[in-house]
Amino acid sequence: MKQITAKDIDSMEQRFRALFVNSLSGFKSANLVGTVSDEGVDNLAIVSSVFHIGANPPLMGMITRPHTVRRDSLENLRATGFYTFNHVHSGMLKQAHQTSARYEADVSEFDAVGLTPFHSDTVKAPYVREARLRIGLQLEEIKPLEINQTELVIGRIVEVFVDDQVIAGDGFIDLEALETVAISSLDSYHSASSLGRLTYAKPDKQPEFFG
Amino acid sequence: MKQITAKDIDSMEQRFRALFVNSLSGFKSANLVGTVSDEGVDNLAIVSSVFHIGANPPLMGMITRPHTVRRDSLENLRATGFYTFNHVHSGMLKQAHQTSARYEADVSEFDAVGLTPFHSDTVKAPYVREARLRIGLQLEEIKPLEINQTELVIGRIVEVFVDDQVIAGDGFIDLEALETVAISSLDSYHSASSLGRLTYAKPDKQPEFFG
Repeated sequence: MKQITAKDIDSMEQRFRALFVNSLSGFKSANLVGTVSDEGVDNLAIVSSVFHIGANPPLMGMITRPHTVRRDSLENLRATGFYTFNHVHSGMLKQAHQTSARYEADVSEFDAVGLTPFHSDTVKAPYVREARLRIGLQLEEIKPLEINQTELVIGRIVEVFVDDQVIAGDGFIDLEALETVAISSLDSYHSASSLGRLTYAKPDKQPEFFG
Repeated sequence: MKQITAKDIDSMEQRFRALFVNSLSGFKSANLVGTVSDEGVDNLAIVSSVFHIGANPPLMGMITRPHTVRRDSLENLRATGFYTFNHVHSGMLKQAHQTSARYEADVSEFDAVGLTPFHSDTVKAPYVREARLRIGLQLEEIKPLEINQTELVIGRIVEVFVDDQVIAGDGFIDLEALETVAISSLDSYHSASSLGRLTYAKPDKQPEFFG
């Protein structure tokens, strides 16, 4: 195996480094973040930086890019207090990816890429009708990460839309049945194939596959 | 689609809620965190909460559980200032999962589950020899998330060990070639199958698959 040092990473060409370092975090979730501006323009942006923070209360996190780039999603959710996460499935991959193009602030990515907004009574932000798992969030906190001028956005889950056929008896959601995709690095998409679920680990016994 | 409200989530049985809410963050990376205690006992723990924070400087984040549970990894990395992330591949799945059993603080999970420590000169923490992608990190910051008593651990990448055959000419690492797995919910493991990489999105053109 090759040893790649901090100095090697530092001397990489910028795009090479971005692809390389973004690969190190492994497989990541693919979500479309839905928001609406004060002017009523819907915004949609694909992100690979959504993660679990806690189940009780139900909290999710997202890392946003530095202040130096225009970030409609962040400005919108700061203003309205609401946003949505919509799982990307394989049938909507190109449209989802295309939301990362730099459209002007007055253009709705829904129109630009061909996806359909869906509204609920609870959340002041658009969902993606085509998505098979949709999560509505209320903004709790934006924590600046001074170390690299990014921000951690923490939201509380206020509602979830999903076909309840894919929820197992123990609460597990079968994401493969929804054809939810994973992302690696910056631009690579993957479908998932189950290797199984493993039983709760205890010191005195071996885990077994089930489900 | 069924609407599941915050109230519904709140009234779920605890283990059901944990499996359900942990499913919402989609596919997650599977890493073994390696640390060593002041007494020289190696520790290894599987986590699904590792994520990308930035490429320049190269930073990764991890969310740890509340202070109410014993957390050897966090205490160790706080004391030494170093830790490792080791990608879990399908050939070491049961051993990796088994590290989540509650072994006593004086037991090395390496011995208990049958994995092999590997040391470098740079990082004061054990790597997993069986892992095919290993990342050494220096602790930068531990940010308390007061909202649910978890903590965000931010580290700077100081070295990476990987077979350089899997690094593409543009910096992309082929994680499927390494058989790196993904996690969904709390206990489900998945292999990945490429759907392709998509070209950099621009407003005036459609993305195309490549690679």
